[in-house]
Amino acid sequence: MANDHLISIVGAGPGDPELLTIRALRRIEQADIILYDALHGEDILELSSPKCIKIYAGKHYQDGQHQTERQEQIHAQLKLYALQGKRVVRLKAGDPFIFGRGAEELEFCLRENLCIEVVPGITAGLAAATTFHIPVTLRGVNSMALFYTGHKRNGGFVDIETVASVIKANAPVMVYMGLKNLEILVAELLDREVASDTPIQIASRVGHNDQQLYTTSICELSQFLQQNDPPMPAVILLGAYAHKVR
Amino acid sequence: MANDHLISIVGAGPGDPELLTIRALRRIEQADIILYDALHGEDILELSSPKCIKIYAGKHYQDGQHQTERQEQIHAQLKLYALQGKRVVRLKAGDPFIFGRGAEELEFCLRENLCIEVVPGITAGLAAATTFHIPVTLRGVNSMALFYTGHKRNGGFVDIETVASVIKANAPVMVYMGLKNLEILVAELLDREVASDTPIQIASRVGHNDQQLYTTSICELSQFLQQNDPPMPAVILLGAYAHKVR
Repeated sequence: MANDHLISIVGAGPGDPELLTIRALRRIEQADIILYDALHGEDILELSSPKCIKIYAGKHYQDGQHQTERQEQIHAQLKLYALQGKRVVRLKAGDPFIFGRGAEELEFCLRENLCIEVVPGITAGLAAATTFHIPVTLRGVNSMALFYTGHKRNGGFVDIETVASVIKANAPVMVYMGLKNLEILVAELLDREVASDTPIQIASRVGHNDQQLYTTSICELSQFLQQNDPPMPAVILLGAYAHKVR
Repeated sequence: MANDHLISIVGAGPGDPELLTIRALRRIEQADIILYDALHGEDILELSSPKCIKIYAGKHYQDGQHQTERQEQIHAQLKLYALQGKRVVRLKAGDPFIFGRGAEELEFCLRENLCIEVVPGITAGLAAATTFHIPVTLRGVNSMALFYTGHKRNGGFVDIETVASVIKANAPVMVYMGLKNLEILVAELLDREVASDTPIQIASRVGHNDQQLYTTSICELSQFLQQNDPPMPAVILLGAYAHKVR
């Protein structure tokens, strides 16, 4: 398929260049400009042309910049380079539409009549599941799986009743950006009568050479976290059948 | 990364060869044997070597064969070819762990001490979302997204309360294999006080040249289905924010 789009919002997958889609690789190879976030995978940027200009668009540690302001800067850059006729790749970890804010950038570009496409990527939860042999769905056992963000909103976890009901139905919950607040999340699940022996899998740095799976359970989590410090990024799989196939 | 595995369970994505991962493409190119299901995308099989033996392992229309029997045959074939030292690719539509029965085959191979890996694929719900510009998550709006199978179990839909609670929380539900029973599913959701104007997106044949998006809503579904017959395979996105970005 020819690429007539000036702007491609591209899912980079979990970080391993082999887990890019072929379309994502082509867009990166052909890009004049790449606007990238913290990808945790420099190897992917190295697939671009030597002439490609690579611009970091993510957070800097304690830079104090407001999220809205940062997002507006990204929008302005997308527009600027597209109007110059450059091929712009907006590179995002995982899949652009799973907790990736891809929709905001897409909406901006459509409003500005900029020709844009979105290229899907392997999202962290599913990359972790396949890499570490943790089934997401099992025939006859569970009929669903939930993506959930461990980022709090308005000071608390939202939709926690739904998360609890998914786990109680023997289905897995894939928690994104949830390591920092995991103990609080788990306490809220216990309050809603989720079984205390529910397995927890913490998949750390999936798709990187130092990827590692940590296995614990709801009742053992506090002790586990005193003894272990799983490196970021990490995605967490919660649920009775969220265990390794052996 | 070198491939030391004799058996690779490979997610083929939605059907467009460009949406294969690079690793999936390499496994297909190097395969001696490919065991494939109904992929709805012959283009992907054509990426294999001319010497590769391609064996259809899916259902035949009204072949009357029992699911368990078919699955046991697949297991036997995986073992047979792997013991002959062949590189075997077990090719599955979408992602092997999202309603793909990949876990059963993985479990069998591990039990038999066969060297196996699982390669993730772009799952239909996320492919549909990115292709048709339907956001899955929106910052500040929804904190989750649900995969759900529209296949009934024991004569009914399971976990329907959870599905309803996800939609009521403004989050999307991606329904797999759900077209046939969609009216019944929707009636059950209405019984649980899901809003009757909830948008429904039916993404038909995503990743193929004839891909098409059909838009309707819960209250308009019956009339819509009288006038339209979306071709299979189709994935359905339900929910207030499951609408196209414009």
